[in-house]
Amino acid sequence: MDYKKIVQELELKMNTFSKTGDVASYIPELKKVDPTKFGFHLACLDGKEYGFGNHKELFSIQSISKVYTLALAKEILGKDLWKRVQVEPSGNAYNSLTQLENENGIPRNPFINAGSIVIADCLLSVLENPKDDLLKFVRRISHDESINYNLKVAESEKASGSRNVALIYYMKSLGNIKNKPEDVLDFYYHQCSLSMSCQQLANSFKLFANHGKLTETSEHVFNQQSVKRINSIMLTCGFYDEAGEFSYKVGLPGKSGVGGGIIALLPEHYAVSVWSPRLNKKGNFSLGMKTLEVFTSLTGLSIF
Amino acid sequence: MDYKKIVQELELKMNTFSKTGDVASYIPELKKVDPTKFGFHLACLDGKEYGFGNHKELFSIQSISKVYTLALAKEILGKDLWKRVQVEPSGNAYNSLTQLENENGIPRNPFINAGSIVIADCLLSVLENPKDDLLKFVRRISHDESINYNLKVAESEKASGSRNVALIYYMKSLGNIKNKPEDVLDFYYHQCSLSMSCQQLANSFKLFANHGKLTETSEHVFNQQSVKRINSIMLTCGFYDEAGEFSYKVGLPGKSGVGGGIIALLPEHYAVSVWSPRLNKKGNFSLGMKTLEVFTSLTGLSIF
Amino acid sequence: MDYKKIVQELELKMNTFSKTGDVASYIPELKKVDPTKFGFHLACLDGKEYGFGNHKELFSIQSISKVYTLALAKEILGKDLWKRVQVEPSGNAYNSLTQLENENGIPRNPFINAGSIVIADCLLSVLENPKDDLLKFVRRISHDESINYNLKVAESEKASGSRNVALIYYMKSLGNIKNKPEDVLDFYYHQCSLSMSCQQLANSFKLFANHGKLTETSEHVFNQQSVKRINSIMLTCGFYDEAGEFSYKVGLPGKSGVGGGIIALLPEHYAVSVWSPRLNKKGNFSLGMKTLEVFTSLTGLSIF
Amino acid sequence: MDYKKIVQELELKMNTFSKTGDVASYIPELKKVDPTKFGFHLACLDGKEYGFGNHKELFSIQSISKVYTLALAKEILGKDLWKRVQVEPSGNAYNSLTQLENENGIPRNPFINAGSIVIADCLLSVLENPKDDLLKFVRRISHDESINYNLKVAESEKASGSRNVALIYYMKSLGNIKNKPEDVLDFYYHQCSLSMSCQQLANSFKLFANHGKLTETSEHVFNQQSVKRINSIMLTCGFYDEAGEFSYKVGLPGKSGVGGGIIALLPEHYAVSVWSPRLNKKGNFSLGMKTLEVFTSLTGLSIF
Repeated sequence: MDYKKIVQELELKMNTFSKTGDVASYIPELKKVDPTKFGFHLACLDGKEYGFGNHKELFSIQSISKVYTLALAKEILGKDLWKRVQVEPSGNAYNSLTQLENENGIPRNPFINAGSIVIADCLLSVLENPKDDLLKFVRRISHDESINYNLKVAESEKASGSRNVALIYYMKSLGNIKNKPEDVLDFYYHQCSLSMSCQQLANSFKLFANHGKLTETSEHVFNQQSVKRINSIMLTCGFYDEAGEFSYKVGLPGKSGVGGGIIALLPEHYAVSVWSPRLNKKGNFSLGMKTLEVFTSLTGLSIF
Repeated sequence: MDYKKIVQELELKMNTFSKTGDVASYIPELKKVDPTKFGFHLACLDGKEYGFGNHKELFSIQSISKVYTLALAKEILGKDLWKRVQVEPSGNAYNSLTQLENENGIPRNPFINAGSIVIADCLLSVLENPKDDLLKFVRRISHDESINYNLKVAESEKASGSRNVALIYYMKSLGNIKNKPEDVLDFYYHQCSLSMSCQQLANSFKLFANHGKLTETSEHVFNQQSVKRINSIMLTCGFYDEAGEFSYKVGLPGKSGVGGGIIALLPEHYAVSVWSPRLNKKGNFSLGMKTLEVFTSLTGLSIF
Repeated sequence: MDYKKIVQELELKMNTFSKTGDVASYIPELKKVDPTKFGFHLACLDGKEYGFGNHKELFSIQSISKVYTLALAKEILGKDLWKRVQVEPSGNAYNSLTQLENENGIPRNPFINAGSIVIADCLLSVLENPKDDLLKFVRRISHDESINYNLKVAESEKASGSRNVALIYYMKSLGNIKNKPEDVLDFYYHQCSLSMSCQQLANSFKLFANHGKLTETSEHVFNQQSVKRINSIMLTCGFYDEAGEFSYKVGLPGKSGVGGGIIALLPEHYAVSVWSPRLNKKGNFSLGMKTLEVFTSLTGLSIF
Repeated sequence: MDYKKIVQELELKMNTFSKTGDVASYIPELKKVDPTKFGFHLACLDGKEYGFGNHKELFSIQSISKVYTLALAKEILGKDLWKRVQVEPSGNAYNSLTQLENENGIPRNPFINAGSIVIADCLLSVLENPKDDLLKFVRRISHDESINYNLKVAESEKASGSRNVALIYYMKSLGNIKNKPEDVLDFYYHQCSLSMSCQQLANSFKLFANHGKLTETSEHVFNQQSVKRINSIMLTCGFYDEAGEFSYKVGLPGKSGVGGGIIALLPEHYAVSVWSPRLNKKGNFSLGMKTLEVFTSLTGLSIF
């Protein structure tokens, strides 16, 4: 596969797509982002990398961080984790409360907000210094010590996070939150505020395309079985009520974030990241998804 | 990969699993099936096949037939199909009406009953002799002219199908059924009554593991893009409200049927079928799912 | 209370209200009704009557008939009726299927379509000649032998009744329908097609304002306890998802029909009927409800 | 009507009813209540009163207080109130979040928790000293300066009120809360902690049976129209998902509280209160409801 040529072709193709629309506005600090930003970065398991546009610029990874925390929690807690959160697609929006009511406060999966908040609660119970430990972990798998939280974004999210306060207290009322809600949300807002570039993201996710091993050192960070399962959850639940659409069009496990980033991966081949903070009329980051659809069509490869 | 050895090991392992429980009872004719039946058949793209147990015995494939009709409808109608049915996991049971109410009679995906009934309605509008044409198609991709409908089962389903009558009239009231409901259901009950063995099923699904080509003749039945997408829908929606569970544990696109059959496939490698009509306490065909979980663990391969 | 004067004042007041909008269109035969029709009729227990407008003209009483069939079924079956249907407000639209799914096919109350279809099924099990018997009953309590079904309307409803077919088969699948669905719906469409004037309606409902006795003969048709309870169900459930609104603004037990008719009553005083087939922008028969709101304000009387 | 004799007969009858079951336990402070407590008090508009059992003993009125705050808010805000809360029966449990999600954070009615929390928020925006002002109001209409909050109960509710925190933040995220959530809940927990006897409750509610006038001084506290409407909301929404049941069996506007108290009233006749903190197997305060059912049967009077 000549990835270099394919990425060049992709760059040309994407220039022909309409680029209108504005950025997401519900977190004030994210509103300040320039909507014309657009970056793409491909990190192959053989160490080669190809990117274009704003692929080296930092942005707020938001919900993409939910994969990191899930992987950490799964590694530490093993099967016990599934007593606290399910692995089924929700068929609902990312911040819905309806299903929680019918399912005793056990969220449908670890990628809706409720589920990731439960994961955060789990980590708070087992990590010594949750915020530090998470940061160390992300830096380690990215081989990049410069990665950090964006405290302004974390603060902004906290100030506008009434819905998340509702979610956590609702689960607490049903017995599925063990730590202080304020502490859990503080950790959760920090994880969402992680500031990374397409390049950093793609490199950090090679692990998930490589059966849990770091490509550089062959060190096993996660066991193969766990990685298979996390990839599966990305595929079935990574895009909320658009999971079927993404799987259908792109055919790769992936995860999106409200900052406009998407990560995806093809096991044994590569991890890939796009960033486009512009929303289309329906409120979706359609340019990013389109980019990956074109990319997998050009390569002729997907998991299916 | 030494599939022969793996299948032998699998057969030994599965003997150690508890085999209690009864068969599904809501279709009277299916109640008569011997609950101890258990078959497994693996059909590799290179033409080799391995099976054990009752793998050559006929059973009612039921909802597995939904993949055949979806593939046919997609081939004939192309993108227009998605105006009539979505591709999102439903997060609900296979025969739920709730979502239809909120979504204007457009079913969540082609594998819940409502969705497959819409597919049947689509086929009725375009096929000359729907029941004959479907049979011919299945025989062709299975290379087996002996495959047939089980008219007793079709009749039995018709007699006990109040829920499906409700579903189709509900969608008709919302404008999403074009043909006579009785005709559509007649076709639908016939498709579900298809009687096949694990061996026949596995062979007929090699197509979906082979980018749409018949392995024997290299003839393109479906284009590669379509097959990728149908596999994607199997993965995200093939097991109703257990789709996440199956994807998580097995990691293959697949489809189950209430007769106790499961089909699954690994692109570029194989199609595999299990049959175990016994339900566990929670009403699931757990032995079949377990068999595939053990099988993919033994091979160390999945799409993830 | 000088009802004569109040009704005159009401007539004058109502002339000042805007009269725009069209008639309901989902039953073709009802579409033909002149939208400018407007009638009001008050029948006091002392035998005095006051009306204006098209109060002596026949219209399709539709769901108002559900009160007659409920009263009959309650009288014959007693408490057993409540195993088949509940008495709680549904909080949903009149033809919703959602709650049925969560509540095992036991409708929320006898006035949503599903509930009234169950009542019809109950009556079919106990009446010799259901359609004749119902007609006899309505003629008897109205003292008017001319009342009849409108067969064209019944036919039209049957032809456009996919939603009701869905409802009845859904309940049948859950075991809450005992007779042939076709027969039950035939009876149900006939009851809905009853053709009556405001005057006939008001007179037939005096019974419910008079503790179950005919005012003319003091004959007990229903016992006092039953009437109290039917009035209660009218108040809490008579207007579907607008029951609270009607109770709040008018303060009388009542029932509406999609033909534009409303019946209401003040125990120990009167029964009153309005007819205005015109829908407002939100699809409500607002003129009829407004008429009764003004009427109860003028009298200063309500049940509260 | 010889109320004295009827109340005596009632007392005898109620002794024959089974009195098993325990008290509600979700608010720790309420768990301490003796489950055998049972009181009944009737306050007629002519000033006569009849009671028995523990009718002069204080208990926590809990949700009965929602009528007081609704009446106050309605008097101050008028129709504007209905932009913030609806008047429809919810068809759901008292603390459900599901409907809020579909209805933009506008609660179904002022008596479910979400609705009463919005009412509390409204009062906080207009009252100088909300807690003092409410207390003064309740004392005034009860003619009893001894009535007070139970601070232990308020504190206990605060400590166990995760669900209410979830509700208020959820509504805040949808723009329907204007004051600080903590302040609103503090007021809400105080109102619920009001400690009153059956006698005090019945006397304070005579107002609602008397078209808004104090019976002692004929002073108009609320206008007649408002009282009619509050009574209507009590009837359709006063008992959550049992509103239809209560209306059906008792036939009076009323309101229950989780402390085991019920208030009800017959316009132009009386207000009546029962207290029985014992829950039946289904978690309902069935003895209180049964008492009122027997009482209205003995009198032969209801609003219907």
